[in-house]
Amino acid sequence: MVDITRLSSSDMHFEQALDNLLMFEATQDATIDQAVLQILAAVRERGDQALIEYTRRFDKLEVASIEQIELSRDRLQSALQSLDASERSALELAATRIRSYHEKQVSESWHYVEADGTLLGQKITALDRVGMYVPGGKAAYPSSVLMNAIPAKVAGVQELVMVTPTPAGELNQLVLAAAAICDVDRVFTIGGAQAIGALAFGTGTVPKVDKIVGPGNAYVAAAKRHVFGLVGIDMLAGPSEILVICDGRTDPEWIAMDLFSQAEHDEQAQSILLCPESAFLDAVMESINRLITTMPRQHVIRASLENRGALIKVRDLEEACTIANRIAPEHLELSVAQPEQWVKRIRHAGAIFLGRYTCEALGDYCAGPNHVLPTSGTARFSSPLGVYDFQKRTSLIQASPAGAAELGRVAAILAKGEGLAAHALSAEYRCTK
Amino acid sequence: MVDITRLSSSDMHFEQALDNLLMFEATQDATIDQAVLQILAAVRERGDQALIEYTRRFDKLEVASIEQIELSRDRLQSALQSLDASERSALELAATRIRSYHEKQVSESWHYVEADGTLLGQKITALDRVGMYVPGGKAAYPSSVLMNAIPAKVAGVQELVMVTPTPAGELNQLVLAAAAICDVDRVFTIGGAQAIGALAFGTGTVPKVDKIVGPGNAYVAAAKRHVFGLVGIDMLAGPSEILVICDGRTDPEWIAMDLFSQAEHDEQAQSILLCPESAFLDAVMESINRLITTMPRQHVIRASLENRGALIKVRDLEEACTIANRIAPEHLELSVAQPEQWVKRIRHAGAIFLGRYTCEALGDYCAGPNHVLPTSGTARFSSPLGVYDFQKRTSLIQASPAGAAELGRVAAILAKGEGLAAHALSAEYRCTK
Repeated sequence: MVDITRLSSSDMHFEQALDNLLMFEATQDATIDQAVLQILAAVRERGDQALIEYTRRFDKLEVASIEQIELSRDRLQSALQSLDASERSALELAATRIRSYHEKQVSESWHYVEADGTLLGQKITALDRVGMYVPGGKAAYPSSVLMNAIPAKVAGVQELVMVTPTPAGELNQLVLAAAAICDVDRVFTIGGAQAIGALAFGTGTVPKVDKIVGPGNAYVAAAKRHVFGLVGIDMLAGPSEILVICDGRTDPEWIAMDLFSQAEHDEQAQSILLCPESAFLDAVMESINRLITTMPRQHVIRASLENRGALIKVRDLEEACTIANRIAPEHLELSVAQPEQWVKRIRHAGAIFLGRYTCEALGDYCAGPNHVLPTSGTARFSSPLGVYDFQKRTSLIQASPAGAAELGRVAAILAKGEGLAAHALSAEYRCTK
Repeated sequence: MVDITRLSSSDMHFEQALDNLLMFEATQDATIDQAVLQILAAVRERGDQALIEYTRRFDKLEVASIEQIELSRDRLQSALQSLDASERSALELAATRIRSYHEKQVSESWHYVEADGTLLGQKITALDRVGMYVPGGKAAYPSSVLMNAIPAKVAGVQELVMVTPTPAGELNQLVLAAAAICDVDRVFTIGGAQAIGALAFGTGTVPKVDKIVGPGNAYVAAAKRHVFGLVGIDMLAGPSEILVICDGRTDPEWIAMDLFSQAEHDEQAQSILLCPESAFLDAVMESINRLITTMPRQHVIRASLENRGALIKVRDLEEACTIANRIAPEHLELSVAQPEQWVKRIRHAGAIFLGRYTCEALGDYCAGPNHVLPTSGTARFSSPLGVYDFQKRTSLIQASPAGAAELGRVAAILAKGEGLAAHALSAEYRCTK
């Protein structure tokens, strides 16, 4: 029996119980931090030499010369050729759909001209060069390559540099094939904090990038936090979560499996179900207990569900939406009749999966939207990874002589109010018309 | 005589000299960091009581009861009434122009429906509640209130909470008037790390917000860095900079004053001029020496120009644009004939001011675009503050039964490739059509 928390929104201390359930403190380990600072300093000072040393030490990979850390584009293509037909076409279909969706996110430059000839606008440009971290070993996910690389390429990033550790030289064919499909420009077989340092500072071999994206372990996350400011970074992800709102009319096995699909990621992952029907919660519980023994990752699933999962009885779907907004989940399934009616009430979520047929797994792989989503309630203020993360804006101002005269007088008054005389004079010089 | 650096792009070690000039290490002071962590912990644990204690200690402000730290909206209105007519209309005109410009930045939700009925899209919502820090005392800038508050309000933020320290109870009428014009919802007279803590955690009196924006001193910046993740923050600003590219045909006094207008901010501010004409650089130097003695903030201007300023002779305007892209300046003036021709070559800048009539000061106050811009080369990967910083996106996926069947088969193949059996089954359950 899986010992999963059962709650009801009418419990006396429900709010507190929910807070406890959601609580997750990302511990910033001081030992990791110290190690990371040392690695970053070494890579900054000694470049390629430090990369070779750390790769030897941490990845057990002998690198005789620095050129060996780069994989050729031919190597990526041959990984793609090596896939069986169904895997290859699945990856390619996913890439096509992800590309189509992200093309809708491209921002265009704009401007307008005022009556006196003054032009105002915003110019949109892509980042020049982006680094993408792809974890090695077991956590090497080709879907993660697609989700990070495609928006960068759609944005028009000129050079996309992938880094991925290959412990003891082990290469993941699916990951390399995904890189081939996404036209990744360069691939280096380095990982950990040293790879983040190489991308942030540049070495003789690895080019310095403008932004680093992609998931990694605690060392990678700490290194990204430290280089933030020198380069851009994507969000720092917490454990993955799903919140399912069900009206009690979906097959309980489907819902149980949706909860499993989140729980199988790791023991900190969070799966929560909200439903107004007690009997349905019982049925899901029964499905959980029956299905879990069939799951290859049942130990992870059990630990996740028992640590952080919950089945919660709510008064009605309206209350379920209120609770969802409070949680601001990474993934929200609306497994209800007429989901359109309820989606309007949701203000905070990374992605919403509408209707009984839309399980989260579709979004993880191939529906089109990005699977890199804000976790731990950060959907209150942040967004899925998108093309907009690889574009930036520059304001444009061109005052006509008449415009400069009018604006100059206003600017001078405000500058004087702030005690900034040079600002005022600089504006007044232009008041010639 | 102002001892400003003179360089030429044909100097033997020009690249190195430019790097040295641009180098700015934001020192993260460990003492400040420790103090800030202590303050944040106290505010988290003891809420209003800690706020009262720190306000008494740091702002020399006796707060008998916690209600006293809030200013009423009537108080803001009376500040607005108290302004003289020219100041009031200058502030109002600036607000109107800033609002018009930012209204162009509003993103709208979108979706599309595929042939099989599957719907994909992105829903855009405003942040619920935003905190805005406004420095007190001398650095209290009403323009900063306009530039931070207006995009939040245009985005549709429901509640905008301003915090501003009032050392010894001193209120800045212009700042309060600007808050009235922008319809700021609540104002608290608190500052420093304790104000950031109050906004991030919430106290009995100060509501918890979703994002904190606005400039502040080293304590405020350190506090923002620490609460990042729990709430969103805007960028952490470095010293302000201007890069002027001039063809040598603008009045040298205008250019000198533009350099001053940046330099007068503080001693770390950076003003650089690029020009292909030596004689013009000499003329600007002469203007600098002549005009500096007339400036109220001449000591700051001198220190800034001597520490971090430079007049640089370039081969031609083409090379000037290349150097500008390398610097990725916060502010870039193209004080040249036909600036449209050159703006195309600029890839990295916070804001571009085109033509001889467009001095930076117009953009600081009232042209319309935001004056909160990426500094220290971060324009390579980040953007001016805008409405987009107060909106967030949620992905929408609604698979039709036929779509779920097709997508489910693809997702299952990819999930199996990643060793995630529950993902695969969850998708396959939906392959019923």
